[in-house]
Amino acid sequence: MNDFVFYSPTEFIFGKGVTDQVGEHIAKRGYKRALLVYGKGSVVRTGTLDRVKKSLAASGVEAVELAGVRPNPEVGLVREGIELARKENVDVIFPVGGGSAIDCAKAIAFGVPYEGDVWDFFSKKATIAECLPIACVLTIPAAGSEGSSSCVISNDELGLKRGTNSNLFRPKVAFLDPELTFTLPPYQTAAGVTDMIAHVCERYFSGTGSSSLTDNIATGIIRALIDEAPVALAEPENYEARANIMWAGTLAHNDIAGCGLSATPTSRAGGWESHALEHELSAFDASITHGAGLAGVMPAWMRFVWRENPARFLKFALQVFDIEPIDETDEAIEDAVTAAIDELQAFFVDLGMPRTLGEFGIAPEDVDKLLPTLKANKGEVFGGFKKLTLEDAKAIYLSAF
Amino acid sequence: MNDFVFYSPTEFIFGKGVTDQVGEHIAKRGYKRALLVYGKGSVVRTGTLDRVKKSLAASGVEAVELAGVRPNPEVGLVREGIELARKENVDVIFPVGGGSAIDCAKAIAFGVPYEGDVWDFFSKKATIAECLPIACVLTIPAAGSEGSSSCVISNDELGLKRGTNSNLFRPKVAFLDPELTFTLPPYQTAAGVTDMIAHVCERYFSGTGSSSLTDNIATGIIRALIDEAPVALAEPENYEARANIMWAGTLAHNDIAGCGLSATPTSRAGGWESHALEHELSAFDASITHGAGLAGVMPAWMRFVWRENPARFLKFALQVFDIEPIDETDEAIEDAVTAAIDELQAFFVDLGMPRTLGEFGIAPEDVDKLLPTLKANKGEVFGGFKKLTLEDAKAIYLSAF
Repeated sequence: MNDFVFYSPTEFIFGKGVTDQVGEHIAKRGYKRALLVYGKGSVVRTGTLDRVKKSLAASGVEAVELAGVRPNPEVGLVREGIELARKENVDVIFPVGGGSAIDCAKAIAFGVPYEGDVWDFFSKKATIAECLPIACVLTIPAAGSEGSSSCVISNDELGLKRGTNSNLFRPKVAFLDPELTFTLPPYQTAAGVTDMIAHVCERYFSGTGSSSLTDNIATGIIRALIDEAPVALAEPENYEARANIMWAGTLAHNDIAGCGLSATPTSRAGGWESHALEHELSAFDASITHGAGLAGVMPAWMRFVWRENPARFLKFALQVFDIEPIDETDEAIEDAVTAAIDELQAFFVDLGMPRTLGEFGIAPEDVDKLLPTLKANKGEVFGGFKKLTLEDAKAIYLSAF
Repeated sequence: MNDFVFYSPTEFIFGKGVTDQVGEHIAKRGYKRALLVYGKGSVVRTGTLDRVKKSLAASGVEAVELAGVRPNPEVGLVREGIELARKENVDVIFPVGGGSAIDCAKAIAFGVPYEGDVWDFFSKKATIAECLPIACVLTIPAAGSEGSSSCVISNDELGLKRGTNSNLFRPKVAFLDPELTFTLPPYQTAAGVTDMIAHVCERYFSGTGSSSLTDNIATGIIRALIDEAPVALAEPENYEARANIMWAGTLAHNDIAGCGLSATPTSRAGGWESHALEHELSAFDASITHGAGLAGVMPAWMRFVWRENPARFLKFALQVFDIEPIDETDEAIEDAVTAAIDELQAFFVDLGMPRTLGEFGIAPEDVDKLLPTLKANKGEVFGGFKKLTLEDAKAIYLSAF
């Protein structure tokens, strides 16, 4: 168990109808002027945005709006949001949506008090020292941004998608109303669940440290998702399934599943190899949903790296799928590990996720186009469980076709 | 999954040697004058208190001291601490110790800004509205007070032991250094682990709501404790075992193991029947360690109530001990549930905890002396999983001999 700092100060207000309670909570915290940040339509279409605005207005909280956040949010809109927040003198940034809206809001929140350009934080020219408070209504459980220290923003001009981390931008309060997710399309539900499982796996296979307690929690989250996701797909309005999935998305990424597995006490656990590989896919083709891309690359990554630490993969096989090797031979170990990876991939495919990258309409020849930006984002070598070169990355991508 | 609020804002700084880092963290938070609260000797004897004082001094934080907290801390010392904190104008209350020191510190922290007598909060005459900040160094993992919203104080004059709950007194920062627990005596280690398991069980058997995710986390905590406690007893300086136990103590009681199982969104999950029954034991005889008392009453409580919801106990049997009924007959169900309770009790006994209340040197005739204060503390009927009358309580106590 490596040294760690666990700090998840967000107040999570979870349940039926909490969307209509946002005003009282925001007012109680003393915020008077909120910048609402949202996407291109669904929160408007479903009436969620109106409910939030009505609740804020009823509690005397004024609202300014920034609409049009896209999937893989872009720094251009972040800059617009920063200008708007300054001009309107807001005191809280309030995204309504999924990870894209929340990440966009986070970048606005730490961009406002900074004199330079907000991209400086993503190019590591600057370190976040101040941040406006964030409150959010989550409508798409997946990214875990409602409780996480992560923020990922794309820069179209530079062709980059980069993340930054800080406890300063963990939301102060997050409203999680599972009923809002009843209308999520099956593909988005499945991609969200895949993303959650990836968030746990990136930490579980951090390559450093271990903890029987954290491992139980991590695999407990995955097993709950494996149980509940098919129910949510079969019965989109099954509250229990939707609620468990929603809360799992938060716990998959608020760092509770990584305690004791970090390389340094204040760093996030994990090498985040699958996320690095996936980010290049959705940067290359914005139509690739992050979770779906992860379903494409993560099993391939696992097959490429498991020999680095077979015992760790055997523990995963046992804890998640009750799979044990029939004896201690190398062959039996390989069979058990492969069976577990096969099961995980089959689960993703059963949910409607792709088995191969070809299903995204890209070809093996495209892989060479992913490597320059991978190099720009991650360097020549990256990863924690096993150090990966760009050649390794190419081999993983190609094995996923 | 019932509606809930999860709010655990404490920054947990966990690892080897964090005891020597307290000063910088306290100074960074802007605190200038700390009231150190500690017990009757072990933190002095082991040098832990000196390390804390040295670290605070090195960072320019002044320290005032309140020594002599006893197990089952008493309101008299709390009142002394309140006077001292006011006189010395401290800005942070800083317990160094286990649950007793931390609970005493919490009561001081919310007593200082209150004009009336601090017992008003325990007799429910007053509600906590303000509280000084709390930082703590944990030396005895058990009560979970380092991350919890609980505070339990005894009142010798009234012969009562009562708790109060508020998010306002959750510590701002908690330092968890597993090496400090290497010197814990086996009995105290075992009693601590028993208390942790009870904290999870009280929530698991809340009698309302359920969540596949929370259930996985709850039983994952218990399974880690079942794995690690025997290791810590056999090898007191086994860091991994000590570290997992220490972190389990926090997660057993910071409410992560109860999300979705509360009767109301802002109440703690569980009926806390075993704790209510145990509190009378250690109030009756202060030599009874809380965790040991729980080992005495909790299995008896389980045997008394399981028929109220056999499915819940079957899930517990499966998730914690891999025990399943051989068929669906009532007899097979009873066998499976009983086997799980037997296993849990045998685990406690193997750790060195008592199997029967007689081992505390009390007799069945003493049970009648427990009931008047139980009634004073909990009323005629209490509990969540099954409503218990005082007659039921008597039957449970007597079955534990």
